[in-house]
Amino acid sequence: MTTTHAYAARSAAAPLGPFSFDRRALGAGDVLIAIRYCGVCHSDLHTVKNEWGHTVYPVVPGHEIVGEVLETGSAVRSFKPGDLAGVGCMVDSCRTCPECQDGLEQFCEHGAIFTYNSPDRHTGGVTYGGYATHIVVDQDFVLRIPRNLDLAATAPLLCAGITTYSPLRHWGVGKGSRVGVVGLGGLGHMALKLAHAFGAHVTLFTTSAGKAEDARRLGADAVVVSGNAAEMKARAGSLDFILDTAGSSHKLDPYLRLLKRDGTMCLVGLPEHGHPPPDVSALINKRRQLAGSLIGGIRETQEMLDFCGAHNVVSDIELIPIQKINEAYERMLKSDVRYRFVIDLGSLR
Amino acid sequence: MTTTHAYAARSAAAPLGPFSFDRRALGAGDVLIAIRYCGVCHSDLHTVKNEWGHTVYPVVPGHEIVGEVLETGSAVRSFKPGDLAGVGCMVDSCRTCPECQDGLEQFCEHGAIFTYNSPDRHTGGVTYGGYATHIVVDQDFVLRIPRNLDLAATAPLLCAGITTYSPLRHWGVGKGSRVGVVGLGGLGHMALKLAHAFGAHVTLFTTSAGKAEDARRLGADAVVVSGNAAEMKARAGSLDFILDTAGSSHKLDPYLRLLKRDGTMCLVGLPEHGHPPPDVSALINKRRQLAGSLIGGIRETQEMLDFCGAHNVVSDIELIPIQKINEAYERMLKSDVRYRFVIDLGSLR
Repeated sequence: MTTTHAYAARSAAAPLGPFSFDRRALGAGDVLIAIRYCGVCHSDLHTVKNEWGHTVYPVVPGHEIVGEVLETGSAVRSFKPGDLAGVGCMVDSCRTCPECQDGLEQFCEHGAIFTYNSPDRHTGGVTYGGYATHIVVDQDFVLRIPRNLDLAATAPLLCAGITTYSPLRHWGVGKGSRVGVVGLGGLGHMALKLAHAFGAHVTLFTTSAGKAEDARRLGADAVVVSGNAAEMKARAGSLDFILDTAGSSHKLDPYLRLLKRDGTMCLVGLPEHGHPPPDVSALINKRRQLAGSLIGGIRETQEMLDFCGAHNVVSDIELIPIQKINEAYERMLKSDVRYRFVIDLGSLR
Repeated sequence: MTTTHAYAARSAAAPLGPFSFDRRALGAGDVLIAIRYCGVCHSDLHTVKNEWGHTVYPVVPGHEIVGEVLETGSAVRSFKPGDLAGVGCMVDSCRTCPECQDGLEQFCEHGAIFTYNSPDRHTGGVTYGGYATHIVVDQDFVLRIPRNLDLAATAPLLCAGITTYSPLRHWGVGKGSRVGVVGLGGLGHMALKLAHAFGAHVTLFTTSAGKAEDARRLGADAVVVSGNAAEMKARAGSLDFILDTAGSSHKLDPYLRLLKRDGTMCLVGLPEHGHPPPDVSALINKRRQLAGSLIGGIRETQEMLDFCGAHNVVSDIELIPIQKINEAYERMLKSDVRYRFVIDLGSLR
């Protein structure tokens, strides 16, 4: 049992505050990680505020976790004390269903065990996430972190990175692809970096003209202010793939019409109140597709981390002590972060 | 110039009635066809009533045309007088854009010329369709009709057939596929026949339990009344592909949730007022896709006709004289047809 200091929310209305609990005793296949950094994802905020309606309190958020291995169970082969280690959105799954067998544990037919606010079969309670000093995770759900990257800036790869990497890969984005990215936040800025690293021509669609310079620095070849109907129309039928990272409700049709024949627009944001209905003719014309994608499997997450190590891709972050988390949430709601808050867990020790 | 007797609508409010005009003089590449039968498609009705808002009157509908070649231009190689011939939804396109080059003339970047209510570059007016005794069409848009099929029942293949064949083929439906078909009308009954002929396991989703027996006869292995929430839920995640042929607005989520991971639901109906917005989580979970498809290219239409010839697939029809067309429209609005009206153009001669 490892006494763990954390920050938790005790109700939808309460701010996050200090909370202590014990991590489970190390099982044979478990890895005990001293968390050094944890990214702050919009899902954390949605869950804390119970916006998806299934939060169990107290909730300890955080699923962009990097740290150092402190101790390993007797059956752990791939990690040893002192190794860097990461934990993303999942800490377990059934391992046996077709989805798990295919390495897509996020779609586990029995329900993946998410890093926080999921039923915890070890404790009988719910899982507690990475706003904490320590975590114990089964080795099969622990990722290797490249040593050459800035560790704090690596944390957001565990969710924002894989959430954008997976659909870009799945829909075959590569050299010569013409890709659109909708929204420049935590997910959007990773999508720009990754699509650029894959060799695609990348256009950012944003509501705020002020983000153009940043977008180009992050990898965009072009920037379009989505409210500019003329510019949107001029690009009709020009894109192979669009990754829509916007977390709030918005019209899909103007983007669908940017797709070439057989193009796909993939949603990775889950707005609280959905999007207006897409125009069926925008789908029927050019045989377009509207899709969704959810994080990525463990195997692909490791592939993403290795890719980022090889191509020096990390997140643009603002490092905060845990004591500033409530203020950080306020600023996230105003999109006042470029582009991801990361908590320095040293502040809890 | 061929004097042509037809039925036309002169306004959105008027019934169809007799109308005469001249078909263009035969060009070198043209085929003059004596129309024997023409299927009645929902698009005809939408256009006559101007429900899509771009009807030019008088309008002569009809794009499920079969007949006999009367005469051919000097450059026509593939047809000779006496041959059976078909014309579907298109009579021309630019021939040079990437879409046309790929045999997908329905997506022509300069706009395919549809069989009726499209700009007619020969006459300067609009194209007139198949509710008529004759039609003149460029040989590249004339289809060969298998001799072994019932000719009247073949007419609906030119639109209802290709509209369902194309997406079933595009999304790889074949032996072992588990396919859903939503709606049992003109399109739906062809989808059942074709998916069954491809070797798929086919489930029909219908609002009316009374169609179960017919559905099984047409090729369905299972029939689900879509209002039965328990039965819908029991089939969650069970289908590879869903072809949604419903022409009216309805919820998409209950169907999306029937798809397996990476499954696609394809819309081929174009409801006047769109569908309610799909739940983003139904797309994100299992990486599902919502797509659209529009008829099919000329090459694929020929492939479909040849397939139907080889597998003895035709439409279930009710043959009517043209004088009953307005009554047929009334009955279509009540789904009172099993499953396609076909006009016997002998009634106009």
